[in-house]
Amino acid sequence: MSETTTSYQVTGMTCGHCVSAITQELSGLPGVTDVRVTLVPDAASTVAVRSSAPLDPTAVAQAIDEAGYELADPTA
Amino acid sequence: MSETTTSYQVTGMTCGHCVSAITQELSGLPGVTDVRVTLVPDAASTVAVRSSAPLDPTAVAQAIDEAGYELADPTA
Repeated sequence: MSETTTSYQVTGMTCGHCVSAITQELSGLPGVTDVRVTLVPDAASTVAVRSSAPLDPTAVAQAIDEAGYELADPTA
Repeated sequence: MSETTTSYQVTGMTCGHCVSAITQELSGLPGVTDVRVTLVPDAASTVAVRSSAPLDPTAVAQAIDEAGYELADPTA
């Protein structure tokens, strides 16, 4: 089975609890097999999501929002 | 019943999850009736603990440590 990994820039994450919260939320999306976070407390953290099929960008953005964080504007 | 409130300076707290973690840990101490946190993410946060009797300072320091934070040196 081929897998795909997409990285997102997420702001507002400050500590290990934030890493747990976002990992849990994104792991609940259909097809997601792994979530890895590189925490950068004072800027955008990198969240790499591995999945068995390409993810719906809207679903990812919603999951990040529901965890209480914000997807950084990639054009910023 | 008379109650007493003691405030502590705690470092390492950055977000609402940290507030929950320390509130939960300190609420578990015998006699504690209320925990209020004023979060200061980049410095020492104030943690006010109300209890039905004076708390054991060692137990408080241990609870803060177990939650993953540090009691600030009051002489610093």
